[in-house]
Amino acid sequence: MLSNIRIVLINTFHPGNVGAIARAMKNMGLTNLYLVDPNDYPSDEATSRAAGAVDLLENATIVPTLEEAISDCSLVIGTSARHRTFQLPIMNARECAESVIPEAVHHNVAIVFGRETTGLLNEEIAQCHRQVYIDANDEYPVLNISQAVQIVAYEIWMANQHKDFPAKNSSQQDSLEYPHKKDMDLFYRHLEDTLYGINFIVRNHPGKVLDKLQRFFNRSRPEKQELGILRGVLAAVQRETGLTEANNHPEKPDKHSEKQDN
Amino acid sequence: MLSNIRIVLINTFHPGNVGAIARAMKNMGLTNLYLVDPNDYPSDEATSRAAGAVDLLENATIVPTLEEAISDCSLVIGTSARHRTFQLPIMNARECAESVIPEAVHHNVAIVFGRETTGLLNEEIAQCHRQVYIDANDEYPVLNISQAVQIVAYEIWMANQHKDFPAKNSSQQDSLEYPHKKDMDLFYRHLEDTLYGINFIVRNHPGKVLDKLQRFFNRSRPEKQELGILRGVLAAVQRETGLTEANNHPEKPDKHSEKQDN
Repeated sequence: MLSNIRIVLINTFHPGNVGAIARAMKNMGLTNLYLVDPNDYPSDEATSRAAGAVDLLENATIVPTLEEAISDCSLVIGTSARHRTFQLPIMNARECAESVIPEAVHHNVAIVFGRETTGLLNEEIAQCHRQVYIDANDEYPVLNISQAVQIVAYEIWMANQHKDFPAKNSSQQDSLEYPHKKDMDLFYRHLEDTLYGINFIVRNHPGKVLDKLQRFFNRSRPEKQELGILRGVLAAVQRETGLTEANNHPEKPDKHSEKQDN
Repeated sequence: MLSNIRIVLINTFHPGNVGAIARAMKNMGLTNLYLVDPNDYPSDEATSRAAGAVDLLENATIVPTLEEAISDCSLVIGTSARHRTFQLPIMNARECAESVIPEAVHHNVAIVFGRETTGLLNEEIAQCHRQVYIDANDEYPVLNISQAVQIVAYEIWMANQHKDFPAKNSSQQDSLEYPHKKDMDLFYRHLEDTLYGINFIVRNHPGKVLDKLQRFFNRSRPEKQELGILRGVLAAVQRETGLTEANNHPEKPDKHSEKQDN
């Protein structure tokens, strides 16, 4: 189960932190490390700080973009300080662990950590379904990244050790199938094409509409079946407005003619 | 309340760890750092890793021995891996935090961390009332010391934030007054003198007896009043066997003559 949980680090600056994180993960039974475009890596400093967890570094997956790190995940959780202008559903590390454990029985889960100094960008948070923060002193709340990973991993270990709750939750979870990130991306592309097709947005000037819709759907987290229905709706809209998925970039589409007639 | 909780580090080897620990503590609202005979300290590496917690380094108390770091504490908790040949009452970090918070309302509490490579020596553990361990992967359970402090401090922060339990416990705790470590030391000296006086032990060859007694009393943690009673008993033994506290190093004491006659 813990092997379905991956830690994703974006643009780490200090390789020593990557080593410390590998050790922190292995201490808590996590093995699956993704590095998105790390700075100064591989490095002796990382290897030294990893101590007995060098195997995690050797097996780490290095990718150029966040998308590639999470495309097969059905739950993506971004770490950040408590307050964001735009808020996804937000949990502390303990609540996060309790929600992740039953989920990870059947699905890949990613927990994404941002840069040492600046954290996650808004467009990266927008790719997440949930946000997690670490309870801390309001006067000095920013933890070193390796310490933040340690606490999140520790809470996961604790939740996994003392899981009386998954017995309750797992039947629920079993019946829920969540789409992979890449399926959500296909849905968003379909949505964009459709919105463009019905002149709801102007391509290349989509404004904030698409962002807001994406955030909405990420937050609401459709199940696989629900996503199928949503895509069916989009396909139906396209069909009814004279568009097809293969023909969804017309310069001037027939403006939802039949729909309006009904 | 959190200011009554101190973190004690014994013989840290890497000054970077001290800096990381200062940051980890401040993140969780702890301010009180004691360094017992640290290696290579002060150091730029410590200052750099402390980031916004340099004030904790500046205010740290540096002492040559563990005794001096804990003499005014009424609860001393040693960190170590789960299994020890000799076991004090043992708690995980969460249980530790829940027991420390109500206690720290009125008393000084020390949490003691050993060396990076070898941890606490047995004679150091013997000065503790309780042991704390961190739940971790059995196959790779040893955390970096700064990560261990982070988790212990985090659990203390969490317990302090979500303390519905102290309401229950604090009235209990209020009525219990525990002696300071230095009072316990006086008791142990009194005990040793008395045991010597009654020829229960041979001075300079005390064997394991004193160690075992000390462990027993540390584990059972007498209250202040109870310690007073115990010392009264020792004084009475000395008086009855012809010893006084001022005259307790005789070369050949009268061997508990009156006691045996009774």
